[in-house]
Amino acid sequence: MAVRTKKLINNPQNIVPEMLEGFAAAYPNIVRLTDDGLIVRRTPKPANKVALVIGNGSGHEPAMIGWVGPGLFDVNIPGDIFAAPGPGRILAGIKAAHPAAGVLLCVSHHAGDLMNAEAALEEAEDEGLENVEMVVLYDDISSAPKGREPERRGTAGLFFTWKMLGAFAETGADLAACKALAEKVRDNTRTLSMALTPCAHPITGEPMFELGDDEIEIGMGVHGEAGMYKGKMMSADETVARMLGPILEDLPFRAGDEVCVLLNNSGSLTLMELSILHRRVAQLLGESGIKIHRSWLGAYATTQEMSGFGLSLCRVDAQLKNLYDAPANGAWFKSVG
Amino acid sequence: MAVRTKKLINNPQNIVPEMLEGFAAAYPNIVRLTDDGLIVRRTPKPANKVALVIGNGSGHEPAMIGWVGPGLFDVNIPGDIFAAPGPGRILAGIKAAHPAAGVLLCVSHHAGDLMNAEAALEEAEDEGLENVEMVVLYDDISSAPKGREPERRGTAGLFFTWKMLGAFAETGADLAACKALAEKVRDNTRTLSMALTPCAHPITGEPMFELGDDEIEIGMGVHGEAGMYKGKMMSADETVARMLGPILEDLPFRAGDEVCVLLNNSGSLTLMELSILHRRVAQLLGESGIKIHRSWLGAYATTQEMSGFGLSLCRVDAQLKNLYDAPANGAWFKSVG
Repeated sequence: MAVRTKKLINNPQNIVPEMLEGFAAAYPNIVRLTDDGLIVRRTPKPANKVALVIGNGSGHEPAMIGWVGPGLFDVNIPGDIFAAPGPGRILAGIKAAHPAAGVLLCVSHHAGDLMNAEAALEEAEDEGLENVEMVVLYDDISSAPKGREPERRGTAGLFFTWKMLGAFAETGADLAACKALAEKVRDNTRTLSMALTPCAHPITGEPMFELGDDEIEIGMGVHGEAGMYKGKMMSADETVARMLGPILEDLPFRAGDEVCVLLNNSGSLTLMELSILHRRVAQLLGESGIKIHRSWLGAYATTQEMSGFGLSLCRVDAQLKNLYDAPANGAWFKSVG
Repeated sequence: MAVRTKKLINNPQNIVPEMLEGFAAAYPNIVRLTDDGLIVRRTPKPANKVALVIGNGSGHEPAMIGWVGPGLFDVNIPGDIFAAPGPGRILAGIKAAHPAAGVLLCVSHHAGDLMNAEAALEEAEDEGLENVEMVVLYDDISSAPKGREPERRGTAGLFFTWKMLGAFAETGADLAACKALAEKVRDNTRTLSMALTPCAHPITGEPMFELGDDEIEIGMGVHGEAGMYKGKMMSADETVARMLGPILEDLPFRAGDEVCVLLNNSGSLTLMELSILHRRVAQLLGESGIKIHRSWLGAYATTQEMSGFGLSLCRVDAQLKNLYDAPANGAWFKSVG
């Protein structure tokens, strides 16, 4: 199995603090590392704008430390590797951000992340913090059937909420409007992912799931959670056809719709492969009468060096297109418009 | 050996045209694919500004198709995989760009690229094209000793020339000034690279060089050309120390110097690892009295999914810092300043 078991690290127990230190030293003009291990914007948002906060397990970089900055998030709470930060740390993140206009805590739907976020919100209420809301984000159609969307996992398609909500909060929209916008983007987004090879866990060096050299898996989660199809290697065009069909059916996306497309590199896929895959996506969408507003191909949320990708569509209207095209300046996500 | 031998492609013979088609379909607001397979800016530069043209073997994406756009290149001539485009195609690229202010052809120093670029320039002269100049770029200290810099290979440190020259050409500087600026950046840049695993050639599926599971190599080129050290796996901090020392000695970089730092992901290294590596780079530069202006960590020029990185330093003054911080909007390289 093509897994790289060696990583360029020092003591495996120090991976996260050393990563945060090295990251913050690289981008001091954009972010600051606090004494309690939070990544916050170097230049805080004015207090009359809603602050966006997100926690996540580490190991998915550029998500989310690289998504803090103007037009994006205000605070990221990095957890241990593939482990959600605890309620106490999430509460610290909320407090670090807390402007008069309030805080929207974004949660990628996984059991640990949701449980800890709910506990943090209770603590915030107990402490009398006002104007703190939570929005739960999900997009992976393989993780629960249509009609049970709130049971679905959060995967790479959260990209669209991060980007559009980030731009919306900069406009000075209030907390209720920000939450509604996040839900609107979420409810218009669908994702399906696939892998060619697993990755090694950074600490143990062990493969995170099993996959034969001539096999692929479709529908697995961002930590290698089981998918809906495991089978023989196929061509790029066949892979796209097998993934795009279920996505289009699920929303459903229809002729006349306009969409943003994301091909997210899970780690070690090449931009060459993503481009070849996108060629077929664009052809099939064209044949379906669905118009592409923008496509982005790249590594925006990874599972270490796993080779695979997520295909995400977000149905957009004039409001979402404007937000999508607005500028952003995170360390690892930049948009010039 | 941890090599992924399967790639998500269709017919191996169609990799480059399908990649270009899929890429251009993703970023029509930034680039256009011409009938003869060139990637050009969607909105051409005014004719009173120098156009920047570059050719390269494919397989190094985001370089260079992703580096075409405002503040960057005007035309990219993609070759076959790991093969320089021929003189006729380079000439076509020069003609596609040709404004009154002239064309600067940038050449990453490899035998084939240089030979074909020289032939293209002769053809341009024979055809009476005026104001076409060439600049040869190199940075890899492992490929020739100090004092024989023009024999060195072009590797990831060309990043600095691409970025700063791109910004400089936008200011309306003339052809001679653009060439001098490119040489200034080049002469202040030094790079050393290392690999943990090779990559597979996209067409043959064969590893491009040999490396044991517990081995690393330092100093190899972007196509797996032999390096200056092959040995046992070591920690991130030891790796940085072993690479930074020769770089600092070579220029030499001295206390009081200000530098831009690049940690370029060769393909499947993680941003986690790059951040941990950067932590030690920043510490050692600090101890040496060398100030960091900006650091960038990411995949800016790859060798497919090879896992490894290049460490590059560029000594900067006020002019170069301004150019480095100027905005840029390529499909796969964006700077907000």
